[in-house]
Amino acid sequence: MTNTSDIRLALSCRVRSTPFSDRVEEAGVSHYSVYNGMVLPAAFGDMEAECEHLKNHVQVWDVSCERQVEIKGPDAAKLVQLMTPRDISKGAINQCLYIPIVDENGCMVNDPVAIKLAEEHYWISIADSDVILYAKGIAAGRGLKVEISEPDVNPLAIQGPKAGELMERVFGETVNAIRFFRGDWLEFQGKRLFVARSGYSKQGGFEVYCDSVSAVPLWDALFTAGADLNVKAGGPNTIERIESGLLSCGNDMELDDTPFEAGLGQFCHLDGDFEFIGKEALLAKREPFRQLRGLKIEGRLPGCRRPWPVQGVGKVTSAVYSPTYGCTVAIAMIDKSHWTPGTKVTVDTPEGPRTAEVCPLPFPPASA
Amino acid sequence: MTNTSDIRLALSCRVRSTPFSDRVEEAGVSHYSVYNGMVLPAAFGDMEAECEHLKNHVQVWDVSCERQVEIKGPDAAKLVQLMTPRDISKGAINQCLYIPIVDENGCMVNDPVAIKLAEEHYWISIADSDVILYAKGIAAGRGLKVEISEPDVNPLAIQGPKAGELMERVFGETVNAIRFFRGDWLEFQGKRLFVARSGYSKQGGFEVYCDSVSAVPLWDALFTAGADLNVKAGGPNTIERIESGLLSCGNDMELDDTPFEAGLGQFCHLDGDFEFIGKEALLAKREPFRQLRGLKIEGRLPGCRRPWPVQGVGKVTSAVYSPTYGCTVAIAMIDKSHWTPGTKVTVDTPEGPRTAEVCPLPFPPASA
Repeated sequence: MTNTSDIRLALSCRVRSTPFSDRVEEAGVSHYSVYNGMVLPAAFGDMEAECEHLKNHVQVWDVSCERQVEIKGPDAAKLVQLMTPRDISKGAINQCLYIPIVDENGCMVNDPVAIKLAEEHYWISIADSDVILYAKGIAAGRGLKVEISEPDVNPLAIQGPKAGELMERVFGETVNAIRFFRGDWLEFQGKRLFVARSGYSKQGGFEVYCDSVSAVPLWDALFTAGADLNVKAGGPNTIERIESGLLSCGNDMELDDTPFEAGLGQFCHLDGDFEFIGKEALLAKREPFRQLRGLKIEGRLPGCRRPWPVQGVGKVTSAVYSPTYGCTVAIAMIDKSHWTPGTKVTVDTPEGPRTAEVCPLPFPPASA
Repeated sequence: MTNTSDIRLALSCRVRSTPFSDRVEEAGVSHYSVYNGMVLPAAFGDMEAECEHLKNHVQVWDVSCERQVEIKGPDAAKLVQLMTPRDISKGAINQCLYIPIVDENGCMVNDPVAIKLAEEHYWISIADSDVILYAKGIAAGRGLKVEISEPDVNPLAIQGPKAGELMERVFGETVNAIRFFRGDWLEFQGKRLFVARSGYSKQGGFEVYCDSVSAVPLWDALFTAGADLNVKAGGPNTIERIESGLLSCGNDMELDDTPFEAGLGQFCHLDGDFEFIGKEALLAKREPFRQLRGLKIEGRLPGCRRPWPVQGVGKVTSAVYSPTYGCTVAIAMIDKSHWTPGTKVTVDTPEGPRTAEVCPLPFPPASA
């Protein structure tokens, strides 16, 4: 019998490599995930040590798999709005908007960041599903005046408390002027790259939207400039992201779940005077009967590969052992009857039933 | 530096396991690919031995990752037709139709098999892209009367020259009445499962569209009944599929390529009196200037992880060493100037430039 942790990833053109993959592999990546048909570094050997490093230093993450859906043309804003219950009309140029994208049932297609580059020009920086096909389908069905494509844009994330210092060394002091979830075009070796203060951790940092020609030079510049900052290659860290309550589309929510169930109600402007697909369905689902919560599960458990039943009241969708909390931390969809923090539940894990406690997301500080 | 062949796959709920995964892993899968966000067995240790076995015996493949897009309702046929240039109006009940799906530019979204279960009920058995989102987008944009969902259907392929014998033992003689690319509902342990004579090899066989409850019992029944037939667990075999000229969407064609460039012109009925998305664009692209071809490349080369340039005239998109041909066999997009079989070209491989010869697809018999 195979030890599942030893199953290797078969690489091909279909499971795309990124412009950074050579450097990622030279840095010793041990595990890849596959995200939007592209490799995503998941671990470099010791996820707990990497989590600790992320919280104290700075890491460079190849998140090229956050593919961009480029939408240009007179109907660009109309198309973006049709896909999301969030009112995008107030978005400023170079602002990053976290937008739930929903289907005709008001359920989660994706939870990307939409970047408004110009009035008629958006990048949608996607989570793991083919938003480009949804956009193309709607545009073709409606006859919208837009061009939809996947540009040569490969995000590189610089994350951790020393990210600002490292970015300043490479891009200059101007990075400091960029506010959270805003971006600007900054020069790197004669080219202008879009740089946003964003990223899939709560440790602070930036994402650089990089063309493939600039990729290796940018990687090398960051590692040269950051040697004394203890910069390391990394990737979204499952421990840090669950502790921080960062959701993962495809793990924690999918086409069965509404944004309200996913806890994204604040991004749904159902009373707004604008049209989006699934509006009628979502209006009927404003009051969820289940919702994502944190769980602290006793003991050290393996990662969650298939949803674990929460006896009678829900399911665990992500889980990992947290040294900080001294237990397994998880994200779970929990029925209303049991979603109050502090409630005790029982989880059927691969290692048997385990007692767990419902928590808010993000998890309260471990000292609390 | 990591040996890329040692990089492991990080498993999570997002990279979905299948109802057969436990059995696949007990059988010793060494490599998974990820396809439609689901694991796909790619190798069990020795792909050349597996190819030889497939050509002489019978294998059981977990191809659950061929997810089904279920389309039901009065506008079901209209929606399927909107997605493809193939005229589907003549399709019979329980017929499997290989359909290129194209976007507004007439380029390849997917190359699935559409199964017409009833006049207003289709399953689209998809290659690796989210056809469900394309279908939902078009339906929402057009206001079509359809329900679109992903049912609990997990294809299991039985492939190889002894597949008929094995299937007869499990499903009875009635399997023999099923013609190529047709299907029927056959009983298995009190349930009716859709069984089609189809599959991603040229060695003959069937695909059983299995609900998750029937999955392990079906797997076990096949292995019990087939013990003396030397039945083994397998997966789509890259050697056999390239030799046989079976295309892989995402490897050999994608959103940049038309069906004519992919060699799928016979499935494009552009003179038909029906509407589909991308018709106008495709009419202007009937005469391709490049097209997929086979290549025999001298020597034994590694798999193709990034497209390899064919000097001045194209790119290799899939490649593998073939013991049968005693060289590396490949699929490549080749410009018209060089696409005639027998033409010599030079491929820039990871191991340096190599001479190659253009071949038809599928490759002619090795003895020719």
